[in-house]
Amino acid sequence: MARPLNVALIGQKFMGRAHSNAYAQVGHFFDVPLQPVRHTIAARNAEELAAFAERWGWQHHTTNWQDIAANDAIELVDVATPNHLHAEASIAMLAAGKHVLCEKPLAHTLEAARTMRDAAAAAQGKTFVWFNYRRCPAVALAYQLVRDGLLGEIHHVRGHYLQSWGGAQTPMSWRFKKSIAGSGAHGDLNAHIVDMARFLTGDEVAEVSGAIAKTFVTERSLPDGSGTEECDVDDACLFLTKFAGGAVGSFEASRVAPGHENRNTLELNGSKGSLKFDFEDMNVLSVFDGGDAPATRGWKRVMCTSGEHHPYAGQWWPDAHVLGYEHGFVNMLADVLVALDGGQPVVPLPDFDDAYQTQRVLEAALISATRGAAVPLDEVE
Amino acid sequence: MARPLNVALIGQKFMGRAHSNAYAQVGHFFDVPLQPVRHTIAARNAEELAAFAERWGWQHHTTNWQDIAANDAIELVDVATPNHLHAEASIAMLAAGKHVLCEKPLAHTLEAARTMRDAAAAAQGKTFVWFNYRRCPAVALAYQLVRDGLLGEIHHVRGHYLQSWGGAQTPMSWRFKKSIAGSGAHGDLNAHIVDMARFLTGDEVAEVSGAIAKTFVTERSLPDGSGTEECDVDDACLFLTKFAGGAVGSFEASRVAPGHENRNTLELNGSKGSLKFDFEDMNVLSVFDGGDAPATRGWKRVMCTSGEHHPYAGQWWPDAHVLGYEHGFVNMLADVLVALDGGQPVVPLPDFDDAYQTQRVLEAALISATRGAAVPLDEVE
Amino acid sequence: MARPLNVALIGQKFMGRAHSNAYAQVGHFFDVPLQPVRHTIAARNAEELAAFAERWGWQHHTTNWQDIAANDAIELVDVATPNHLHAEASIAMLAAGKHVLCEKPLAHTLEAARTMRDAAAAAQGKTFVWFNYRRCPAVALAYQLVRDGLLGEIHHVRGHYLQSWGGAQTPMSWRFKKSIAGSGAHGDLNAHIVDMARFLTGDEVAEVSGAIAKTFVTERSLPDGSGTEECDVDDACLFLTKFAGGAVGSFEASRVAPGHENRNTLELNGSKGSLKFDFEDMNVLSVFDGGDAPATRGWKRVMCTSGEHHPYAGQWWPDAHVLGYEHGFVNMLADVLVALDGGQPVVPLPDFDDAYQTQRVLEAALISATRGAAVPLDEVE
Amino acid sequence: MARPLNVALIGQKFMGRAHSNAYAQVGHFFDVPLQPVRHTIAARNAEELAAFAERWGWQHHTTNWQDIAANDAIELVDVATPNHLHAEASIAMLAAGKHVLCEKPLAHTLEAARTMRDAAAAAQGKTFVWFNYRRCPAVALAYQLVRDGLLGEIHHVRGHYLQSWGGAQTPMSWRFKKSIAGSGAHGDLNAHIVDMARFLTGDEVAEVSGAIAKTFVTERSLPDGSGTEECDVDDACLFLTKFAGGAVGSFEASRVAPGHENRNTLELNGSKGSLKFDFEDMNVLSVFDGGDAPATRGWKRVMCTSGEHHPYAGQWWPDAHVLGYEHGFVNMLADVLVALDGGQPVVPLPDFDDAYQTQRVLEAALISATRGAAVPLDEVE
Repeated sequence: MARPLNVALIGQKFMGRAHSNAYAQVGHFFDVPLQPVRHTIAARNAEELAAFAERWGWQHHTTNWQDIAANDAIELVDVATPNHLHAEASIAMLAAGKHVLCEKPLAHTLEAARTMRDAAAAAQGKTFVWFNYRRCPAVALAYQLVRDGLLGEIHHVRGHYLQSWGGAQTPMSWRFKKSIAGSGAHGDLNAHIVDMARFLTGDEVAEVSGAIAKTFVTERSLPDGSGTEECDVDDACLFLTKFAGGAVGSFEASRVAPGHENRNTLELNGSKGSLKFDFEDMNVLSVFDGGDAPATRGWKRVMCTSGEHHPYAGQWWPDAHVLGYEHGFVNMLADVLVALDGGQPVVPLPDFDDAYQTQRVLEAALISATRGAAVPLDEVE
Repeated sequence: MARPLNVALIGQKFMGRAHSNAYAQVGHFFDVPLQPVRHTIAARNAEELAAFAERWGWQHHTTNWQDIAANDAIELVDVATPNHLHAEASIAMLAAGKHVLCEKPLAHTLEAARTMRDAAAAAQGKTFVWFNYRRCPAVALAYQLVRDGLLGEIHHVRGHYLQSWGGAQTPMSWRFKKSIAGSGAHGDLNAHIVDMARFLTGDEVAEVSGAIAKTFVTERSLPDGSGTEECDVDDACLFLTKFAGGAVGSFEASRVAPGHENRNTLELNGSKGSLKFDFEDMNVLSVFDGGDAPATRGWKRVMCTSGEHHPYAGQWWPDAHVLGYEHGFVNMLADVLVALDGGQPVVPLPDFDDAYQTQRVLEAALISATRGAAVPLDEVE
Repeated sequence: MARPLNVALIGQKFMGRAHSNAYAQVGHFFDVPLQPVRHTIAARNAEELAAFAERWGWQHHTTNWQDIAANDAIELVDVATPNHLHAEASIAMLAAGKHVLCEKPLAHTLEAARTMRDAAAAAQGKTFVWFNYRRCPAVALAYQLVRDGLLGEIHHVRGHYLQSWGGAQTPMSWRFKKSIAGSGAHGDLNAHIVDMARFLTGDEVAEVSGAIAKTFVTERSLPDGSGTEECDVDDACLFLTKFAGGAVGSFEASRVAPGHENRNTLELNGSKGSLKFDFEDMNVLSVFDGGDAPATRGWKRVMCTSGEHHPYAGQWWPDAHVLGYEHGFVNMLADVLVALDGGQPVVPLPDFDDAYQTQRVLEAALISATRGAAVPLDEVE
Repeated sequence: MARPLNVALIGQKFMGRAHSNAYAQVGHFFDVPLQPVRHTIAARNAEELAAFAERWGWQHHTTNWQDIAANDAIELVDVATPNHLHAEASIAMLAAGKHVLCEKPLAHTLEAARTMRDAAAAAQGKTFVWFNYRRCPAVALAYQLVRDGLLGEIHHVRGHYLQSWGGAQTPMSWRFKKSIAGSGAHGDLNAHIVDMARFLTGDEVAEVSGAIAKTFVTERSLPDGSGTEECDVDDACLFLTKFAGGAVGSFEASRVAPGHENRNTLELNGSKGSLKFDFEDMNVLSVFDGGDAPATRGWKRVMCTSGEHHPYAGQWWPDAHVLGYEHGFVNMLADVLVALDGGQPVVPLPDFDDAYQTQRVLEAALISATRGAAVPLDEVE
């Protein structure tokens, strides 16, 4: 019988729902060593909060997140607030002796991220960051295949995260303001593909060799029709990297790429083969194995839905039944519970230090875009 | 506040899990008019049952499904047993005044299906059959597009449901025995694509014009290694049809088609355009609109993930976040609850009479395969 | 130095161009044992003929094809007339001691095809039929892979040849008249996929188990606007088959399938793997090898453009440069020249007897559609 | 009747064949205003040359290319030598009053390219550069669609040209030596996608914002087995650009990307839609039209094979018959002949000045890679 683990969640928007779902579902599909109890949810909008707590089965709710720190019954705190609030809440919870599970990106500035990393290093609690895509079965399989040597020496890392909702017709919101969001497509989308690149290659970016951050829509109408306001974040951000191990990388994030809804892709080319993931076809990993017989060699469309052969797939449905977006969160939560119980996750979990390394890369890219010059990662601490 | 609705479920295998998940999830994502309460689960294996009930939050459990009929607190009964038990349980529950939600196919024989249809016609309770694929957003969108006239007059209906798990290495099981399963790939897989064809076209099969039912693996080893046994169901079944409205159809189901894991496809070609669904890429509907400008006309890969524009999508995640296999069940349950409350489902729900019409087509195909001749549907009542 | 071989061609329409191109190009890319000389072209329209001969480098031209039979200098005659003229011309040329290379289908009726087969059996000259798709590199590779055992025992044969030009807006032409064309989509399109199925499997159809021939557009406007005329050929034709070796097959041809321009596909599923060809992506063979490692097994997209590893590819451009429609004709002509010189073609060439076997299958399908019953091939001689 | 035009060709390797084929084929498929006569071919290897001339129908051959300049009968000279010889031959031919048609890239160094551009400006003859991909029907269609406003304001230009033949097992050749080849993947492959980007957008690169040129295999074995030699060109080259009109661009060329045979792609994203070309599926243009109805909006797979609606397609085969690699050369030659006759090509032809602009971009990328800083194009003249 799994020991109950009281959890608190801060935030009730998109991520609040995605995480609540993970807490509700994980015990249905995984034999978890700790059974998460939806103890307390905190958020600012009191009216919405009661209904949210009722719908998702949270036992308690509060508009004062500090209540959570003060409650000794709570062991794990999930921070799903806007980015600029991650640091304050996470550090307070670590100080209160909790484990912390924070949404990505780690923080809205590198400075804030550094304080979080340092707080984590000094704390007793464990830390985790919700880089959910690591736990799509296709991505976790890619991780295993790289370790098995399918790629040989890695030469190319190529990541795109393209969306299309950010055209001129989209009204002003906090996402277009630097003071709140930190950056635009860059922090939102490049964060995912930089994490995935580091995760899959096991290598680190040594230099950002060039970058462009571009705002195409410089002014947007206010939702209330009262006029327009300037946008000060990037709509798109592209950069090139050199990895410590010798690979070269290119990364691109955009909110203004029509035809791409959630085109989160990562491709690796090595001396022996290639791998490609595309979230719009998330149950598939594309594999090119240079060791296959030459006459019938080609990209393989691998449906990652075999319980026996593919990570996480066996927890869900019989073979060949596809998963969706939210399953990555449930898979990750299962691994977090295993880790809290002292076990090994299926594939490695990112902690605050790991997420801080990703943030350094993002920062280096912004510096490079501003400077018009290459930026060694060593300069960004 | 939604009125609670006590539900009982019979069965705890694959479908027992899929349905339990639907009851657990529907209230998280839909504003349901009735709130399903997981009241009682019944199944034969007592040991597994307690754990299953605990895991999925069923309040009561019993190894005697007749207990459910006797319990006036229960309003809706979900029959997720093997096929040959559908009729007895469903008819008993209808007799006890319950609403009944039965797994597909309706029954293991046409005779059993007919008794179910007749019982439903005489009963007060409503009936529903779990043809879950109707409620993939892409399929429901296809339904709407056909009604909007995108296809014009329908000429071709082409359905394949191909799987690959049934090779000679697969050991003997009940699925290969006619006395239990009724048929092989035919009842299991063709049932889905015949339902989908009838649903999307709104038309009925007037004749099965030819059919082949084929058993490739005629003998399988027993799981306990004690020898082999004969298989008396089809590994593959193909048939051609004429529809009342003039279209021609071809249907094919197989368990021995390597490379196809769950290739549930339906394509319609009409005088003005075409539509194609493939469950292995379930979030996509392929659309060819003959009215598009000739220079840029082509198959469109439509991601059916827009909350504003695609059925069911708005209940789940923000735009562009894909769904998985089990979401179809949740979507269907939401519609069932709406229907029980007197409302209109997003797209039509199949009842016992509707599922009986599908079963007549399947029966006609088997007769045609045996006779080596065309079989008008009128002959099969 | 290759010996010159005088060739005559009858016909100057689509196929007249495609064949002329083959004679002009074959020596550029292949080291042919015989050098075809474009000696004489015959066609009915004298005005067009002179220009055609000039453009394509034919030395002589005539409106009287009998001149060719009378000319001893000519060794090989290519019959590219409408279908109902194949028999008369081919038999005359065989009687005159020529080799004959005839367009597909062999004839407009089975009777005519039989006389051609008999004439070929009695003649000195060799015969060939232009089933050009056999010589797409992807199809020839499939032939080799089947022989190498990649499929194991073949279970499924699935051919579609779908086009979309035959809607109600298309005016009347000879293609819609049975007296000239013999049949509609069936003879035009199913002929190709039946040939390809027989070629790839090396197996023969034992029974047509059911068939539908359907005319959707029963009346078309005359091109001159003077009214309408009835159509008496099929717009679509579907049939199911049993093969002698145990496989089951389905075939479908249509001219009214929007979105399909030239969708000439054939898929084979066997006990060990699967193969799929689609002419709309003609440089690719899709291969599923059941022997691949389970974790990374999937459909492989094989670009058949390796000079070292793929048939015919090495004659054209360096690796990875794609071919087009007409290359199949050039590849076939090269093999015909090798065969005339006593050598072995890369993959087998169809002669009149071989094409007659294909025609028997097509005839059986038409009989089955009329009878509404299965037709053993033995009945069709 | 088309006036004959005497042509000379320098070079008999891959491009010598591709161009010879164009001269042989253009009159078969196009009604050309000038009929090219294969007058003289020049190349260094005398032995191969006679056979080549015989095979391809060149009337004269010489190992001294200066003979061509001296021959007044020749009007058009085609330079298909290695890159480092382009300048000398082209300039000599322009000085002799010929029209010149040169292979890409224009030259092996920017300096050489500049002298060619200047010579062209001063000459009477017209100049053309063989950027053949402009004349794939799909690319020419893209050109027209951009002019028709399908994209709106262009935001993203994304070009990849990925191949996989350059791994460590590939022995030393001139392609890996800077003194002969100028650069590696960069000049060979990026040249094409930069030309395509400039052609399609009608815009110019204003700055290279960052670049990486990388040699993964630094030493290769000599073909004769006598040891190894150093490689001093790039195996891969990536760079980012800002366009004058505001778009951002990313370009990447590689010879070490397994799974990519000839992956020459260009994608454009604009405020209203997107376009994508991939040479490995060269008959297709992918089109996303933001103006399509939201419920059925998606990437369209447009087969560019309609004689009525797609550029060049009507010259070849009936609708829906695909073309191959070499057809781009024939299409281009047809346009060159039209231009020499004073007419308008279907889409614009690149001359020496145009190709020089492409070369400036390539040079700026190499400088940026060396400097580790952005390079404005103004600096590169």
